[in-house]
Amino acid sequence: MKLYDLDVSGNCYKVRLFAALAGIELTLVPVDFMAGEHKRAPITDLNPLGQIPVLVDGDVSLRDSHAILVYLARAYGGHQWWPEGAAQQGEVMQWLSNSANEIQNGPNAARLVDKFGLPLDKERTLQVSGIILPFMEQHLASNEWLALGRPTIADCAIFPYLAVAWEGGIDMAEYPNISAWMERIKALPNFVPMPGMR
Amino acid sequence: MKLYDLDVSGNCYKVRLFAALAGIELTLVPVDFMAGEHKRAPITDLNPLGQIPVLVDGDVSLRDSHAILVYLARAYGGHQWWPEGAAQQGEVMQWLSNSANEIQNGPNAARLVDKFGLPLDKERTLQVSGIILPFMEQHLASNEWLALGRPTIADCAIFPYLAVAWEGGIDMAEYPNISAWMERIKALPNFVPMPGMR
Repeated sequence: MKLYDLDVSGNCYKVRLFAALAGIELTLVPVDFMAGEHKRAPITDLNPLGQIPVLVDGDVSLRDSHAILVYLARAYGGHQWWPEGAAQQGEVMQWLSNSANEIQNGPNAARLVDKFGLPLDKERTLQVSGIILPFMEQHLASNEWLALGRPTIADCAIFPYLAVAWEGGIDMAEYPNISAWMERIKALPNFVPMPGMR
Repeated sequence: MKLYDLDVSGNCYKVRLFAALAGIELTLVPVDFMAGEHKRAPITDLNPLGQIPVLVDGDVSLRDSHAILVYLARAYGGHQWWPEGAAQQGEVMQWLSNSANEIQNGPNAARLVDKFGLPLDKERTLQVSGIILPFMEQHLASNEWLALGRPTIADCAIFPYLAVAWEGGIDMAEYPNISAWMERIKALPNFVPMPGMR
């Protein structure tokens, strides 16, 4: 199973992290982002949006980090990570939407500005972060994990861009409950870090 | 089962549309957005983010449109709308991520600027739209539906903000394949519209 991968991409790291925690073996295919390999074949054949990660597992090809998390957990026995029940799937799904929207457009986008020089509205990235992070801080005051009282793909989806949020000028020390949750993730068996993590 | 609802919200309409198509009965609880009811109890008790839709079904309370779609389809017999298999769930999930990110920050955000006067970067909303809409146009050149060759919750998630994209200054006539797909959705049995739809 191949993961088209970039080491400094939090979206790629979501998949590497989950695969490590769940004991799923991936063959990483590094994509040279600076050379624009993501805007050429074979990536654009697999994902016309020219984005990574892309997972190829036999006949299955998926182009989005959250879709890949759902697929891997469902295909390789991770009911503890992505549950079967309706209410439980809904509970995890709430956080996958937050990951795709507020985390992507908050902490991730702030880092894209500061670390990679993308011409996004930095003020707006901080506004979005200022909505989702206090919400998470409140949630984690009485919850050890984001959903279901245990580690799930929700944690794997949201952790990466918070672990490197300092690269976008966001100080996670202001959020002690989130910081403690991040330490719990780092303490999980087979945890792997990403570049830039402190 | 109660849906805290706003008629002009595309996020709320995602749920109303799916429930209508799948024959699921909802009790709509209108939330007076202009009076700020979404920023007060009971909404903020159910969702501290102060956003709607919120679904309450007995003990289950969910605060995100995509989570609600997954829950309703899983709980009320909609395997044709939200499948069981790993690859199939992954395929639908890709579009739920696009809905939460690119559609939300593209066509939806453009409409928030033009129709509701939100101080967002209009140029950026058009840039994001200019990435996701051509991608969808290409996909729908050889696909009748977004995923699995049949209507799924992916279509219910993405249709709403495209159906009212003209309110954000986006002309869907430039995308004939997307327009034809929207007509297929409108022709589904028990289809319901939302205010502003042409």
